[in-house]
Amino acid sequence: MTFSEKLKQYIERTDYALNNYLKEETIPEYLQSSMSYSLFAGGKRLRPCILLATNELLGGFNDNAMPFACALEMIHTYSLIHDDLPSMDNDILRRGKPTNHIVFGEGQAILAGDGLLSYAFEIMLRFLLSKSEPNFINAAYTIARAAGVTGMVAGQCLDLLTEGQKTADEALLIEIHKTKTSAMIQAASTAGALCANSAEGIVKAMCAFGAQLGLLFQITDDILDVIGETSTLGKTTGKDERAGKLTFPSIYGINGALLYAKKAADAALCELQPFGKDAWFLQELVESIMNRKS
Amino acid sequence: MTFSEKLKQYIERTDYALNNYLKEETIPEYLQSSMSYSLFAGGKRLRPCILLATNELLGGFNDNAMPFACALEMIHTYSLIHDDLPSMDNDILRRGKPTNHIVFGEGQAILAGDGLLSYAFEIMLRFLLSKSEPNFINAAYTIARAAGVTGMVAGQCLDLLTEGQKTADEALLIEIHKTKTSAMIQAASTAGALCANSAEGIVKAMCAFGAQLGLLFQITDDILDVIGETSTLGKTTGKDERAGKLTFPSIYGINGALLYAKKAADAALCELQPFGKDAWFLQELVESIMNRKS
Repeated sequence: MTFSEKLKQYIERTDYALNNYLKEETIPEYLQSSMSYSLFAGGKRLRPCILLATNELLGGFNDNAMPFACALEMIHTYSLIHDDLPSMDNDILRRGKPTNHIVFGEGQAILAGDGLLSYAFEIMLRFLLSKSEPNFINAAYTIARAAGVTGMVAGQCLDLLTEGQKTADEALLIEIHKTKTSAMIQAASTAGALCANSAEGIVKAMCAFGAQLGLLFQITDDILDVIGETSTLGKTTGKDERAGKLTFPSIYGINGALLYAKKAADAALCELQPFGKDAWFLQELVESIMNRKS
Repeated sequence: MTFSEKLKQYIERTDYALNNYLKEETIPEYLQSSMSYSLFAGGKRLRPCILLATNELLGGFNDNAMPFACALEMIHTYSLIHDDLPSMDNDILRRGKPTNHIVFGEGQAILAGDGLLSYAFEIMLRFLLSKSEPNFINAAYTIARAAGVTGMVAGQCLDLLTEGQKTADEALLIEIHKTKTSAMIQAASTAGALCANSAEGIVKAMCAFGAQLGLLFQITDDILDVIGETSTLGKTTGKDERAGKLTFPSIYGINGALLYAKKAADAALCELQPFGKDAWFLQELVESIMNRKS
């Protein structure tokens, strides 16, 4: 199986499960539509793919990992909906489509985000009702922590606060990238390992892998905002600079940022070495992010 | 011990625990301030008190119930912050103080809400890491469900959608009240019983009790919005009518609404009868809500 065939398989299985989760409850129609709109707006499903691939590499049973993969994607999607709001990044375009609040109104967009975040925890806890092994509880906790006030929400708070800051504060830049983006990608690889009931050492290695992969993803995101095309990316480019955001290119220039990206990619690949060829999918995933155009 | 002494004890213990939860993590200062501001803005702590009192009545150990009581209060507080936003109820006053977005800005208020919701699940899951008995997992699940897309978020969605609706749709009014307010109060009494590891029949009775208590609370809330004083309530009155909201007084008039409130109070007290005098605190709580002025 090629990388893109395997990727497609993970994405299709995630989409199928996400669709079932949205259909199996009597959610008010408007709320369900607004949640679905953003959940099925053509996301790359990066976090679920990392979680499922890590889980499979470590001998896990993907059916047990799927609720966590879907929860991660729901939490990621809620964060995009809230980030795009006028009082945050004020974006009207996401993945080439109008953002949630443009279509459903601001109040309902906030609720779509609140709904996705709540539902993510509901599906994980429902799974725990039937399988309460410590590793599964730990997977849910890992995701909660990554999403929360020392993770993604912290990152978004700092990101908003430092807009327009002129000084090149490297420590702060790393802190924002770590919390805002890396935390959730790190949670994906870590939860994948936990759902496979891996030994502590393996979980730690996959946690380190996710941290580097997350950093790589955010640096390439920063770079694409400068050199990418709106039509390819499906979102407005150049907005970091206009908003005066702290980014890798703004501090190190494009070439400096590319060097940092390469360093993160190498470090991620290094963590995969002990698994040899078995880790082929995750290795190619690292390379595809390093070379991504969107 | 009198009712108000006992109430004060529950509130103080909840405040102490909430304060510790906010301090024990390295949350960005601005985010911590905005979360604290609303969490300690003089809330009645109704949901934690119901949870702890139910738990105590049924022989539970309050230390095991406290993470769930605090989670409920955090989720309740997040819902108020988001409800008050300009794109929702657009309120500038809550408990006699400027609302969160007035003080911290709209973007940061949304994040304070997101942070409180995420942290609520983080503290429950952290507790489950050390105590993974099915009843505790069920308590967390019950709270997730009450807060979510078939509970509180659904209620807020319907509430926003039906603003200005002129037809007196009783079924819809009950649906909104059930999901928007009752669900979380019902979760409080149910989770209190679950944390005490009560038998299924008892859990069901406390669930029914919470449903009636929640309905009573929302009907009296509707009534106070019409006949209450802004200075006593600490929030703007008359806003339901101005927003054209579906409420008990708007459909049944004040006297009709009072009759419904009395009916809900009686039904709640009826569920407590099997516990006799042991349930004195919850009985007095029902009466205090029936007669509340704020």
